[in-house]
Amino acid sequence: MKKIGILGSTGSIGKNTLDILSRRSDLFSVSYLSANRNAELLLEQARIFKPARAALMNEKVGAEYRLRFREVGVELLSGFEGILALSGEDVDLMVNALVGAIGLRPTLNALKPGKRVALANKETLVLGGKLVTEKAREMNAELIPIDSEHSAILQCIVGERKEDIKKLILTASGGPFRQWSTEKLKNVSIKDALNHPNWDMGSKITIDSATMMNKGLEVIEAFWLFDLDADRIEVLIHPESIIHSLVEFVDCSCKAQLGLPDMRAPIQYALTFPERIQLEIPELNLASLGKLTFEEPDVKKFRCLKLAFDALRQGGTAPGVLNASNEEAVNLFLNEKIHFNQIPYLVEDALEHCGTNSYHGVEDLLNFDEMARNRVREKYEQSF
Amino acid sequence: MKKIGILGSTGSIGKNTLDILSRRSDLFSVSYLSANRNAELLLEQARIFKPARAALMNEKVGAEYRLRFREVGVELLSGFEGILALSGEDVDLMVNALVGAIGLRPTLNALKPGKRVALANKETLVLGGKLVTEKAREMNAELIPIDSEHSAILQCIVGERKEDIKKLILTASGGPFRQWSTEKLKNVSIKDALNHPNWDMGSKITIDSATMMNKGLEVIEAFWLFDLDADRIEVLIHPESIIHSLVEFVDCSCKAQLGLPDMRAPIQYALTFPERIQLEIPELNLASLGKLTFEEPDVKKFRCLKLAFDALRQGGTAPGVLNASNEEAVNLFLNEKIHFNQIPYLVEDALEHCGTNSYHGVEDLLNFDEMARNRVREKYEQSF
Repeated sequence: MKKIGILGSTGSIGKNTLDILSRRSDLFSVSYLSANRNAELLLEQARIFKPARAALMNEKVGAEYRLRFREVGVELLSGFEGILALSGEDVDLMVNALVGAIGLRPTLNALKPGKRVALANKETLVLGGKLVTEKAREMNAELIPIDSEHSAILQCIVGERKEDIKKLILTASGGPFRQWSTEKLKNVSIKDALNHPNWDMGSKITIDSATMMNKGLEVIEAFWLFDLDADRIEVLIHPESIIHSLVEFVDCSCKAQLGLPDMRAPIQYALTFPERIQLEIPELNLASLGKLTFEEPDVKKFRCLKLAFDALRQGGTAPGVLNASNEEAVNLFLNEKIHFNQIPYLVEDALEHCGTNSYHGVEDLLNFDEMARNRVREKYEQSF
Repeated sequence: MKKIGILGSTGSIGKNTLDILSRRSDLFSVSYLSANRNAELLLEQARIFKPARAALMNEKVGAEYRLRFREVGVELLSGFEGILALSGEDVDLMVNALVGAIGLRPTLNALKPGKRVALANKETLVLGGKLVTEKAREMNAELIPIDSEHSAILQCIVGERKEDIKKLILTASGGPFRQWSTEKLKNVSIKDALNHPNWDMGSKITIDSATMMNKGLEVIEAFWLFDLDADRIEVLIHPESIIHSLVEFVDCSCKAQLGLPDMRAPIQYALTFPERIQLEIPELNLASLGKLTFEEPDVKKFRCLKLAFDALRQGGTAPGVLNASNEEAVNLFLNEKIHFNQIPYLVEDALEHCGTNSYHGVEDLLNFDEMARNRVREKYEQSF
């Protein structure tokens, strides 16, 4: 029986993880759950899965619900300290499905000998890739990706030697604006941008998918997860999202992992890797799909993708600055303060002004995160 | 330094194997070579690769060339006995690229502890799958496929557990007649049938590709190589021949191996498995290809594919009868004695009349092989 803890259990990844665990209660037990502020859903999950403890990020709501959790036999912690306490618990695997930079410390805290962290939190690697991968090595702990692209790469390289890998090819749907002209992109509405063709996700990540910043962040994650130069990571547009990514080897042989888009597949793989267990989800039928299509990404049109590669090559704090400035810029867009194609403009400005220092700890990273956010807000106020 | 022996070195697979070995003389040495009757080419290969011994199947030509081989320091054997003698030599790996049922005994003879047989000879497994796989297990010897489809499957399952495999999906180009009507198929000319869209191969295998018997034989080989029921082996039409085959796992995740059609890739993989070494061949670029297409195979139109599945399910001598009767029928077609769509008719007749007994040794298999050939010739003389 594997003991599983989930941070962010009321979001899309968290709910899908619980769906898998509920099907295989013979293999998995739930040790803890956490949510940002959706106390009702967390309480319902606590009733069903009976973790020993749970945590709510929002302290006020946490105080209101403490008794109701106690009634179902679950100790409720609250605030970031509560979440951090859970992450230190002795489980076999922690799913980190937190959103944002707050996901970094719980990952670092969870990395202990023999323990696995299944990562859905992008910031863990985008900001803290160096710290996190060094600690994982030092602790002999495992970092397993949950993203479908990184899971695909992991599946393609099992049984292969690292030195036999020539390059990683991350596929991207290209988002809803793949075929729009640069001119037309100026007038993208929020509704247009939230209309992702293949995956149903939150609004921040859907906008990132539309700007292709999402793929840029995944390139940075791939860099840390698989320890390959930026020059050996490529992006390929594949609108059907059936091939989740590919690996090319030194003998020009490529391997791909395929499936219908369903997050339960990579989540379960992160739980069972390197083994597999049955999963009853719709099966891929290539004949009924008929075709898969591919094209080069247009980095002139989707500047965010190029900025991500630039930040990765600069290293140090640059990926963190990229991520924080993008988050602020996307917020401005979602609040109808800026146009869609002003997002890369603000990110590029932040990258130019917030330095690319090396860093020594989480504090440094969070300082640069804050600096980048401030720069975007200032620039917005000056310019628009 | 790995010692390599090649049976059938003057054919397409043999020449491609030598091309690879010539690039990496730091890793591989050639212990022996053999040919059917192309003594001039064999002599040239012997001069370049300096094997200790070589063999010519044709005894008359062998007698004529013995001295000329001796002049370049190579002992020339001849006849099937010569080939069999080579197959027993103490090498690290034998490439069996013989054509036809004569490939079976050399494979059996080569299977010794720690030794690898790289198989391009279809008959080894189609006729003798049970004998050969049992002996390989008993001897702790390795059977590694050279066919691009089986190599693809092998590449997809490294690092995976056998019990996690749900099914194998062999891709097929569909041959030149994929889009022809059943009516039009009656009037296929030899020239039409020899015009394969993606691979440049010998005439027998090209006709088998046009009837899809080739894919049927590969299904039978996959059955023996990977030890999965016929119900768990599928065929998918993929006209571009870029995805060489796929494996679906119990969690509905699929893995595929891809590359431009180039036999050097699977040949080299058979030499280096499970490791890889660099290979300078044209690289796959999916964006420049633009798309990959897929469809269900039409087993009504391509009856040979169905007959192969039938023979596999019948077991015993049936796959051997299928193979031998097909070889005879294809000969009749290549000699313009029968129409293209009479090939499956003759094969089906042979399967009905030549029994599906179990067998105990190579003699049994070769008897049924002969019986099936006779039946086809008799039936042809009676009917046409």
